[in-house]
Amino acid sequence: MSISLGRYLFERIHQQPVGVGSVFGVPGDFNLTLLDKIDEVDGLSWKGNANELNAAYAADGYSRVKSGFTDGPGGFAALVTTFGVGELSALNGIAGAYAEHVGLLHIVGVPSISAQQKQLLLHHTLGNGDFTVFQKMSAQITQTSGFVKDGETGPDVIDRCIREAFINQRPTYLAFPANLVDEQVPLERLKQPLDLKVPPNDKESEEEVLERVLELISKAKDPIILIDACCARHDATKEAKELIDRTEFKYAITPMAKGARDISEDHPRFTGVYVGTLSYPDVKEAVESSDLVISLGAMLSDFNTGSFSYSYQTKNVIEFHSDYTKIRQAQYPGIRMKNVLRSLLDDPKFEDSFKHYQPSAVVKNPYKAEEPKNEIITQQWLWSKLSSWLREGDVIVTETGTSSFGIIQTKYPKNAIGISQVLWGSIGYSVGAAFGGVVAAEELDPNRRVILFVGDGSLQLTIQEISSMVRNKNNIYVFVLNNDGYTIERLIHGETAEYNDIQSWKHGQILDTFGAKEGEFESLKVSTPKELNNLFSDKQFAKNDKTRLIEIMLEKMDAPDNLVKQAQLSAKANSG
Amino acid sequence: MSISLGRYLFERIHQQPVGVGSVFGVPGDFNLTLLDKIDEVDGLSWKGNANELNAAYAADGYSRVKSGFTDGPGGFAALVTTFGVGELSALNGIAGAYAEHVGLLHIVGVPSISAQQKQLLLHHTLGNGDFTVFQKMSAQITQTSGFVKDGETGPDVIDRCIREAFINQRPTYLAFPANLVDEQVPLERLKQPLDLKVPPNDKESEEEVLERVLELISKAKDPIILIDACCARHDATKEAKELIDRTEFKYAITPMAKGARDISEDHPRFTGVYVGTLSYPDVKEAVESSDLVISLGAMLSDFNTGSFSYSYQTKNVIEFHSDYTKIRQAQYPGIRMKNVLRSLLDDPKFEDSFKHYQPSAVVKNPYKAEEPKNEIITQQWLWSKLSSWLREGDVIVTETGTSSFGIIQTKYPKNAIGISQVLWGSIGYSVGAAFGGVVAAEELDPNRRVILFVGDGSLQLTIQEISSMVRNKNNIYVFVLNNDGYTIERLIHGETAEYNDIQSWKHGQILDTFGAKEGEFESLKVSTPKELNNLFSDKQFAKNDKTRLIEIMLEKMDAPDNLVKQAQLSAKANSG
Repeated sequence: MSISLGRYLFERIHQQPVGVGSVFGVPGDFNLTLLDKIDEVDGLSWKGNANELNAAYAADGYSRVKSGFTDGPGGFAALVTTFGVGELSALNGIAGAYAEHVGLLHIVGVPSISAQQKQLLLHHTLGNGDFTVFQKMSAQITQTSGFVKDGETGPDVIDRCIREAFINQRPTYLAFPANLVDEQVPLERLKQPLDLKVPPNDKESEEEVLERVLELISKAKDPIILIDACCARHDATKEAKELIDRTEFKYAITPMAKGARDISEDHPRFTGVYVGTLSYPDVKEAVESSDLVISLGAMLSDFNTGSFSYSYQTKNVIEFHSDYTKIRQAQYPGIRMKNVLRSLLDDPKFEDSFKHYQPSAVVKNPYKAEEPKNEIITQQWLWSKLSSWLREGDVIVTETGTSSFGIIQTKYPKNAIGISQVLWGSIGYSVGAAFGGVVAAEELDPNRRVILFVGDGSLQLTIQEISSMVRNKNNIYVFVLNNDGYTIERLIHGETAEYNDIQSWKHGQILDTFGAKEGEFESLKVSTPKELNNLFSDKQFAKNDKTRLIEIMLEKMDAPDNLVKQAQLSAKANSG
Repeated sequence: MSISLGRYLFERIHQQPVGVGSVFGVPGDFNLTLLDKIDEVDGLSWKGNANELNAAYAADGYSRVKSGFTDGPGGFAALVTTFGVGELSALNGIAGAYAEHVGLLHIVGVPSISAQQKQLLLHHTLGNGDFTVFQKMSAQITQTSGFVKDGETGPDVIDRCIREAFINQRPTYLAFPANLVDEQVPLERLKQPLDLKVPPNDKESEEEVLERVLELISKAKDPIILIDACCARHDATKEAKELIDRTEFKYAITPMAKGARDISEDHPRFTGVYVGTLSYPDVKEAVESSDLVISLGAMLSDFNTGSFSYSYQTKNVIEFHSDYTKIRQAQYPGIRMKNVLRSLLDDPKFEDSFKHYQPSAVVKNPYKAEEPKNEIITQQWLWSKLSSWLREGDVIVTETGTSSFGIIQTKYPKNAIGISQVLWGSIGYSVGAAFGGVVAAEELDPNRRVILFVGDGSLQLTIQEISSMVRNKNNIYVFVLNNDGYTIERLIHGETAEYNDIQSWKHGQILDTFGAKEGEFESLKVSTPKELNNLFSDKQFAKNDKTRLIEIMLEKMDAPDNLVKQAQLSAKANSG
């Protein structure tokens, strides 16, 4: 009645409440025997990536989509790399998950314990006998790390790494020596599922928070609820929605909260997307004139705030975060958002606190732009036009650059899931994330469409993950915005500089070159507004039954208005 | 009479004795203004890569080729990335350069000093206000790091980072804030070229070393000189060759020393490639039966030694290293190889020490294999056949896997430069390194051919750098060995496992898809021994006047004999 330690790891990952169905990564000789164990777990499959950076991006995208679908404690994903070479290639992707609060487990197959003790000059080492150096590097960008040392303590190390990744929605690191894969573990351990609940808040501290929050609400005339990324990542959107529905306070979202679960852009109290000075003027006014700001899961990075241009008129700001609460200037460490919101909603005094409130008018839908009169597609029009093509439940992945800024001007349908790496902003991310995203979506509901928008520049960094989509016959839409180079960089600096140029590719041949099979793929090119209109009204095209790559031809310096403004702010900040 | 600090950096890199002609990297908003300065330096150009990992590989390949060409203190290259996202993507490549002793400078454009002081939540940060975390990560895999803080101390920081990279042949890290690019520096500083000489050895210690070395030589009947990678990296091959020519001692090389400058496989005293138990029996016997082993620049990793299977019969081993010397069991820290070899050769007692020596017979050339009788190309034959096609001065880049093992069985022509990442062994490396290598070769002597051998599996990790070759119209040969997946992994473990499969690509379309222009490229496919013979006797093909991709079809489990044996040793080590 025992199983191997390797299998234990994958059973834990697959078992509820974790519920992972696919593991990402790249094989390497220190992880091969570990990978054998994936197949032993019913319902778990291996999704090999073309390289490790893409594997990390894919795990990130998978985790985000899972948390967008499921009503659970948060997202989770796993990737497996090999010692040294493999794990270091993944670091940028892991750091992105750390910055943006994405739960995932980075499993690294490492040399056997005896090779480490003898300090052998193995391949994939620095040649100095130091086997701890890579773990030290990962420690800078992970919540915690664990090193499996033997069969006896291994399961505890594994459980801790999974739990910490989940609860904190951050990556964790697990080193698994090749020789310990077949150590035996009692099967019984699996009977006790992992407890993934966040720890309860300190009673006394939470009571003080509730008292002050209720008081501020009871005095406010026109509060605004501002929803940001961590509200979704830390599983507090249900509470946020209940807060909105019961109080009828108006609410705005940040760019990073677009497409968060339970947070609709169709709700009668929805006020728009707030990005400081880059907001639509009415939205800016609505947020900044409020006399109480209730902020949920804020992540106040430059690109998420119009270069820190928030400008509330009130000092009455309540910030709920994943692991602390702030009321005006008072901080309450350890008072976690999800728990304290639940307590607030359940508080007998809650209903009374807002009974005086008269729901104020909300901003009229600002998502519109005129169709260009000439033959050229503009980004300003493209993103607003897109609203009409999207449908309920779509998963929309946008690359840093014109796409992540443009999409702010698109109205998301009900239950949309939005994925964009606004804070970390690593170009190329979206391609790997879209692969992970479509794997997750196809596991949960193959009818939901996954739609990627990536520029021709960013695409070049991670192009090989398109091959993974072809290999897995993923029904996905890859929109390549061809504007002949790094447009976001050109806007910031060096409009005509050679370093912002890229090699022109024949995008129409990519799927075929990667071995896509007749009938399973479609490559399209769209150059005029009319062609785009036709495409978006084509019923065949709307059905996600193929791997599709659609190239959209755009002008070199064309960009959505908000990106043009952001670029000016960024250029100024760099020289300051 | 002043120049900008940004320009100062690039002038230093371009100026002799450093002599860099091309800078690699990827633009990002924190490095754009810095990149402007490259164009201001006469003779220096920007070679943008498709992603940062490839940029690091390219810099590594460039540095190796330069050191193979030039009679200077060692190789050097520079790459520029952007803060956080860019630099982390490059880490695996930087670590490889660290492990394998390759001199390069990693320049990172970082946010302005004021943004750092205010701990702003900028994009490309972890969102925690910590701007030092990435530098800490790089510190684990670099010789030293520098942070430019102001215009006054900036030039010293820059000079130190260049010098340390050069002298130690290791990567160094330089953080350059965006707002300091235009700080002014006295032009005069450039008049004093950098001193890149290694520090002199301690006199007393060196004298003791010489005394003991001369004594061991004078007593030896049949010494062997064993040349390894660090002999080339640390610029001691001239001394090594003089040692061989004057003493007429026989010499062997390791896999990592194949294609080292000045070290010919055509020399009358050349004995073969020594890889422990994986050596040809005659070579093994010749090395191991010697009564004095003079080892130059050893890097005793598993793949370089047949899994640590060296087995000398003598205890008389002298090891010269870049920064210490070891004689039998005595270590002499700080006694650097290049200096001590020079002193040995100049020692008045040197000639006397070996006058008793009677040159022993050397091993007959073992490079041969029979042409397969059927229609299938075997690796065993391919690599030996290749010897006849190579010509003087070729630069041969081989990927970890069947190529890096197979190439040991190829006879290198005079002045060949061999590039392979045997210790670090990151798959995909060879593609980026070949791009850097061909850029260096075209700078120095466009007649010299650059020839890449990469497997279809490894190619997928870094395919986009083929696009950089197309973009730069590099005249290169890319041989893609198509054996349908990760053959080296299959040999170690999981012969039929799904995780060792890859997506099949249409390799013949790659150059065209990446936008290669009619007449500037050629895509070929070779499936039989006859076709390969024809190709290798085609005079047009032999001329490096195009970007060429040649797919060679091979059997899934076919591999050179030495790799089959190595894989068995590796599998055993992993389970032990």
